[in-house]
Amino acid sequence: MKIVIAPDSFKGSLTAVEAAQAIERGVKKVSQDIETILVPVADGGEGTMDSLVAATNGRMVDVSVKGPLLDSVPAAYGILGDGQTCVIEMASASGLCLIETTKRNPVLTTTFGTGQLIKKALDDGCRKFILAIGGSATNDGGIGMLQALGMQLLDSDGKSVGYGGGELSRIVQIDDQDFDSRITNCEFLIASDVQNPLIGKDGASYVFGPQKGATPQMVEMLDRNLSHWADLVEKKTGIRLHDKPGAGAAGGIGGAFQAFFPSETKRGIDIVIEYTGLADKLTNAECAFTGEGQIDFQTASGKTPMGVAEEAKKKGIPVFALAGSVGKDIDVLYEHGITSVHSIVNAPMTLQEAIIGGAALLEDTAEQVMRTYLASLKK
Amino acid sequence: MKIVIAPDSFKGSLTAVEAAQAIERGVKKVSQDIETILVPVADGGEGTMDSLVAATNGRMVDVSVKGPLLDSVPAAYGILGDGQTCVIEMASASGLCLIETTKRNPVLTTTFGTGQLIKKALDDGCRKFILAIGGSATNDGGIGMLQALGMQLLDSDGKSVGYGGGELSRIVQIDDQDFDSRITNCEFLIASDVQNPLIGKDGASYVFGPQKGATPQMVEMLDRNLSHWADLVEKKTGIRLHDKPGAGAAGGIGGAFQAFFPSETKRGIDIVIEYTGLADKLTNAECAFTGEGQIDFQTASGKTPMGVAEEAKKKGIPVFALAGSVGKDIDVLYEHGITSVHSIVNAPMTLQEAIIGGAALLEDTAEQVMRTYLASLKK
Repeated sequence: MKIVIAPDSFKGSLTAVEAAQAIERGVKKVSQDIETILVPVADGGEGTMDSLVAATNGRMVDVSVKGPLLDSVPAAYGILGDGQTCVIEMASASGLCLIETTKRNPVLTTTFGTGQLIKKALDDGCRKFILAIGGSATNDGGIGMLQALGMQLLDSDGKSVGYGGGELSRIVQIDDQDFDSRITNCEFLIASDVQNPLIGKDGASYVFGPQKGATPQMVEMLDRNLSHWADLVEKKTGIRLHDKPGAGAAGGIGGAFQAFFPSETKRGIDIVIEYTGLADKLTNAECAFTGEGQIDFQTASGKTPMGVAEEAKKKGIPVFALAGSVGKDIDVLYEHGITSVHSIVNAPMTLQEAIIGGAALLEDTAEQVMRTYLASLKK
Repeated sequence: MKIVIAPDSFKGSLTAVEAAQAIERGVKKVSQDIETILVPVADGGEGTMDSLVAATNGRMVDVSVKGPLLDSVPAAYGILGDGQTCVIEMASASGLCLIETTKRNPVLTTTFGTGQLIKKALDDGCRKFILAIGGSATNDGGIGMLQALGMQLLDSDGKSVGYGGGELSRIVQIDDQDFDSRITNCEFLIASDVQNPLIGKDGASYVFGPQKGATPQMVEMLDRNLSHWADLVEKKTGIRLHDKPGAGAAGGIGGAFQAFFPSETKRGIDIVIEYTGLADKLTNAECAFTGEGQIDFQTASGKTPMGVAEEAKKKGIPVFALAGSVGKDIDVLYEHGITSVHSIVNAPMTLQEAIIGGAALLEDTAEQVMRTYLASLKK
């Protein structure tokens, strides 16, 4: 009997790899004869790079880059098992988690480091890129990335502007003469679930600015700046980012990819499922486990458990979802292929206790779910 | 498909009947076509009377009796569906829960009310009794019950002694001339899991006295008094209660039954399972649910889930145990027939939240467990 174990991370408690291993221990307690296939999964957010590298037996490459506030930060990109595909988590170079709460300020933060990661991977020979753009600290329309790759963004004196969303308004000319020419020969696959346009009340600044530290005044200014930038991009490329779906992803870096890169955007979970080879691994599986810290009706909108379940559903394989916290209206998940949802919390306890005990709780729950499932086969 | 639902109460949250109904709702959400058979169960403790009356379509009889401190309390006994068997919970007349914590004092508390319940049921024509003797407030060796049924316990002046464990030392003679003669024509089935002797460090006073409010000094005195009483009983009946297993149950009332009543003692859960007809109800069931507030390794020692599981195991029927809190080392339950144990807690929460939300949590968990179990049948 073969069982596929494909959880996301349990945030704050277990990485996806640790979660998969805990579930495996639980399953093996029921029977050592069960063959387990571990496929730690992420949905395009944190852990996507680790998940893809682990699933393809790839490798990590450490790179020091400029962080969102231009300080030096240790970042990394992954090379998948094919030796050619580079996977980058934008948050590793330009992420919100790299800045203390009090210093978060999207007027200043730049995507420069993300551009540096791309440049380094280009130098390493990569021509295919998967970019997971969740968790960014930036609202700069992606200009930092462009700057790192040689794009000249000039002010009225013909000098390069500085970094961050606050500088966008000073740009009067986009000079792509020195923009890295290798990019035209690349494929960029953007992992993003965000459909927001660049500008306006549904745009990058208004929707995501506040959580990156923008005050209401900053939000208005940043939105004006992005609008100015979008005008320039349209003049330069003919591509109108203002109301283009997805252009507002990750502080507008989504738009920069749309305008200046040979790129395609897909749901993070779909990319991860494709590149981890989950479909093949599910073939002839008896059942599958997935999981995430929190599972509720929102899981249906592109979260890992749903992605795993949709793939398993095609093959008629039951999927058991384990979660630290099971929320409301999980019935909507059934049609996506989730068989059942079980909480790993085994008694009244605090969040802190559940987080600290996560591995043991997950192991125990996987064991019990496996025992329940197998009971009818044993009859 | 037929499913048997046989939980105990979830203490402080749900009665056994409410728990069974919640599980039924969860099961029916998976499929309305599933036939459910509800068998609320108790293990000889609180709820035993309700469980047996409900399972046999019996009835309750309200009786006002003297409580453990001689105040008047509303108590009740049950008549099973056969119309002949009386079921009495000693705690209803002489229980610890009838006295505020500060007033608990086993030197004073009496089993008189329990005797009154028996007398009333004898008057009603009952000749078969099931006595659940858990939860008592008393340490009187059962003399209150004997007094209520006409036994004369005389002091050195030939006068009747008073009530409570403190009076035992004053008895010099047991006069059974007026002891209710109907008792010899009865059967008494004592539901008790306690194997302690009447006297000594493992006896009633030392083991159970403190939780009934006895100070260390009281414990010594009560043990001496029971020893004196056991000497008198031995002289009168030839039965030596001092070190007899079970004589120490419920403050020594166990010994009183052994010495003066045609009685047999069985584990509470075994009696309940026999009288609820659980074995018959399990015939051809697809699976069974049981449950209790707390499930851990101690559940193996005669608690409801284990009793249900042992019965189901004989028929090869899987048993899913649901609990508010799942404790340590539940592996020991598997050999008794428990298939798996699932907590109803679906997220980090306080005990209070779990208690208040008990019905919904139990319903949801039963649904998910059912979905998991049925998944393999649907493949």
